[in-house]
Amino acid sequence: MELVFLGTGAGTPSRQRNVTAIALDLLAENGAYWLFDCGEGTQQQILRSSIKLSKLDKLFVTHLHGDHIFGIPGLLSTRANQGGITPFTVFGPPGIQAFIDSALSVSQSRLNYPLEIIEINDGLIYEDDLFRVEALHVEHRIECFGYRFIELNRPGKLEVKKLNALKIASGPVFGRLKQGETVILEDGTVLNGRDFIGPEIKGRKIAIIGDTRRCEAAVQLALEVDIMVHEATFAVLNQDLANEYFHSTTVDAAQTAAEAGAKALILTHFSSRYQEEHMSSLLTEAQTVFEAVYLAADFSSYSIPLL
Amino acid sequence: MELVFLGTGAGTPSRQRNVTAIALDLLAENGAYWLFDCGEGTQQQILRSSIKLSKLDKLFVTHLHGDHIFGIPGLLSTRANQGGITPFTVFGPPGIQAFIDSALSVSQSRLNYPLEIIEINDGLIYEDDLFRVEALHVEHRIECFGYRFIELNRPGKLEVKKLNALKIASGPVFGRLKQGETVILEDGTVLNGRDFIGPEIKGRKIAIIGDTRRCEAAVQLALEVDIMVHEATFAVLNQDLANEYFHSTTVDAAQTAAEAGAKALILTHFSSRYQEEHMSSLLTEAQTVFEAVYLAADFSSYSIPLL
Repeated sequence: MELVFLGTGAGTPSRQRNVTAIALDLLAENGAYWLFDCGEGTQQQILRSSIKLSKLDKLFVTHLHGDHIFGIPGLLSTRANQGGITPFTVFGPPGIQAFIDSALSVSQSRLNYPLEIIEINDGLIYEDDLFRVEALHVEHRIECFGYRFIELNRPGKLEVKKLNALKIASGPVFGRLKQGETVILEDGTVLNGRDFIGPEIKGRKIAIIGDTRRCEAAVQLALEVDIMVHEATFAVLNQDLANEYFHSTTVDAAQTAAEAGAKALILTHFSSRYQEEHMSSLLTEAQTVFEAVYLAADFSSYSIPLL
Repeated sequence: MELVFLGTGAGTPSRQRNVTAIALDLLAENGAYWLFDCGEGTQQQILRSSIKLSKLDKLFVTHLHGDHIFGIPGLLSTRANQGGITPFTVFGPPGIQAFIDSALSVSQSRLNYPLEIIEINDGLIYEDDLFRVEALHVEHRIECFGYRFIELNRPGKLEVKKLNALKIASGPVFGRLKQGETVILEDGTVLNGRDFIGPEIKGRKIAIIGDTRRCEAAVQLALEVDIMVHEATFAVLNQDLANEYFHSTTVDAAQTAAEAGAKALILTHFSSRYQEEHMSSLLTEAQTVFEAVYLAADFSSYSIPLL
């Protein structure tokens, strides 16, 4: 499980940072990539990464500003051209369907795969055997969602060494114990599955907050997550601009992470007024409030290991 | 006057070639850039060029396939963000207005400049004191236009050396002669303006043909142009694919250039199946039919000098 930042700039692309897109690499978990936002040029960024478009099967859109959605029609078309045939689902605010329908229709783009577009509201928006995704409105100039991605907890592993020590041969008994059953062996020994299953494996949690000023919803979305991704369009010095445009500063984001008890914070969506030489001071600002901060750059990636 | 190729690939972007966009640098003539087609990522290509988005004021769209239009909403938005305030005009096939309106509306993009969208048909679509642009349907899977860009002929320059040799002092007389008037000097000498004006300066002509199979309209658009830009999606070996998908091969394009009496031909819109190592054979194919052929690459440029 890895986050790969494909675009980390705000508003318009710069030479250093493309507009927003964040891929979640779930290859090891379910063989897929998921994407959060898709600014113009995301498919070109994907070309320069190791991500396979045909394996990308979900897109979660935070809001409808152009720097978060103008790459969607091209990405969907190219996925078809590259032989993607598996279903693709887009989740996003009301209006996302009209945008995609218009672009695909006027361009007569034919997709070779089923495309489902789900206009969301607050609450649980997706779940399967492995993951749940929840959405909550955050506070931006237009309707905007933050997402909480939750990997479900899994039962612990069968403690094979313990069974070996009791000289119990592997076979159907192992399977029954793994299911938590009580098994009586031929010699009358009673084995309780619960005694041979290790501790529950805690699923990982990620919060990806859209564009927002500092808000309580972001705290809720990020409660005790392994990683919170939060925008930091502005430096503290430009708190007034952040307030005016419903964006956050480095410190806004860090305070949210601290309140939420997040384990780590990745800042992204930097205004193009900040160049590489400003980055260390942006980092320092955030660290005064929350220690485990990272600044995303285009193509930077962050593994989220199981604990 | 210079053509700058910003994207030279067909259908989907590759690492080597972005999707279609061709800039016409008219800085020396009228202080502006014009653009032909605007695939996704064109604004990022412009960032990597010397073109200023604020000085781009016209876009001519050949057809509505995604690889020719998906960069328009982002380009228009970024032009506003970068302080572009002068009017911008988009010319294109019916449907272009609905596409742009939908994208700008759903994303709540506010432009700080007047945007005019003109859905065109065959014939003269634009003229001013310097240039005319004509459009004609070419033959693609969907409605597609080719453009003929015509610089108007200008009166010749006043032959100052000739006047100096007659010891005529510069002043109002020069201006009247330049207008072609007949002037009688104080000593009774009669000067006819026509005798002191050099030959008419021939305007330049460029044809930019959209996606098309070989067609008569392309010949008409390119009659005796200085440069014809023609697609060459396929090599001769894939003539069947070219026919099937209403595209051209290298030789189709070269034959059109030859029939039109074009002075030079630039091929572009290459299928991503062709890599750098195939380019010399594509060139050779075309040269068997028409000698003055060039293969466009992203960021390649071609000056069109006055003769």
